[in-house]
Amino acid sequence: MKALILAENDFEDLELFYPYHRLKEEGFEVYIASSQKELRGKRGYTINADLSYTDVRAEEFHALVIPGGKSPERVRLNKDALKIVKHFFDENKPIAIICHGVQVLISAGVVKGRKIACWYGVKDDLIAAGGEFVDGVAVDGKLVSARHPGDLAEWMKNFLSIL
Amino acid sequence: MKALILAENDFEDLELFYPYHRLKEEGFEVYIASSQKELRGKRGYTINADLSYTDVRAEEFHALVIPGGKSPERVRLNKDALKIVKHFFDENKPIAIICHGVQVLISAGVVKGRKIACWYGVKDDLIAAGGEFVDGVAVDGKLVSARHPGDLAEWMKNFLSIL
Repeated sequence: MKALILAENDFEDLELFYPYHRLKEEGFEVYIASSQKELRGKRGYTINADLSYTDVRAEEFHALVIPGGKSPERVRLNKDALKIVKHFFDENKPIAIICHGVQVLISAGVVKGRKIACWYGVKDDLIAAGGEFVDGVAVDGKLVSARHPGDLAEWMKNFLSIL
Repeated sequence: MKALILAENDFEDLELFYPYHRLKEEGFEVYIASSQKELRGKRGYTINADLSYTDVRAEEFHALVIPGGKSPERVRLNKDALKIVKHFFDENKPIAIICHGVQVLISAGVVKGRKIACWYGVKDDLIAAGGEFVDGVAVDGKLVSARHPGDLAEWMKNFLSIL
């Protein structure tokens, strides 16, 4: 089983590394896709990307994770990254987003009518795009979303239960 | 079920927060014990302590975690922290240490004859104190140890399997 994380510089470090190690713990092969080779989190942790967005064969992946921080504002600008996201929604495959990760979903045009948790600062953008804000951890079909690092345990527990 | 984390300032952020959330995910109540009220990791993440070392009733806890960073060099100076560690060894209760966490075990006098993984920079201290260095994740009875954040998944997977 393969999981994919979409990330750019200034990702929220715990929001990337918690699911990264957690999915490995569960036996997943975990890959980072990015427009860059070397990535640095807001807190200074570094990780290398395994794939560019164009290299990703989305049909080979079973789960998608989008961490927060400033990273999603960069991911959302890349059309190939958005194609990956759309594939996961079209095929109804498991997706976990947290914090600002919702920004990528808004740009992919997939939030309308969905119950979604996100960071408070971008809640109005979610609502303007037709989504319904949840102030906690939200499970809406195969989409599991959360607000901030304080939700990590409940976020991943719910995500793993649908994997 | 209750788990206890011993920490001081400049803990290695992922080594504290990964087990913190992971044990919560598993249903544990997780408590931080420290000599200080507010703690700050090497990377700037903050967390409040729940208990002072003298407040800890060690017999009420089922699992002990000692993260690395510069924190263990401070934890090891506190006699009440070392008493907690000795209680866990005397009662053969589950203990997870990582990185520099071994320094606390050396000061508690409990490493002799044990197979232990730790950060390379303090490996010779472990050996001088009579321990056997393992270059990976080590499981020796109820003691599960690891070298660095790259081991987080395997470290916690093994720890949870004995809990």
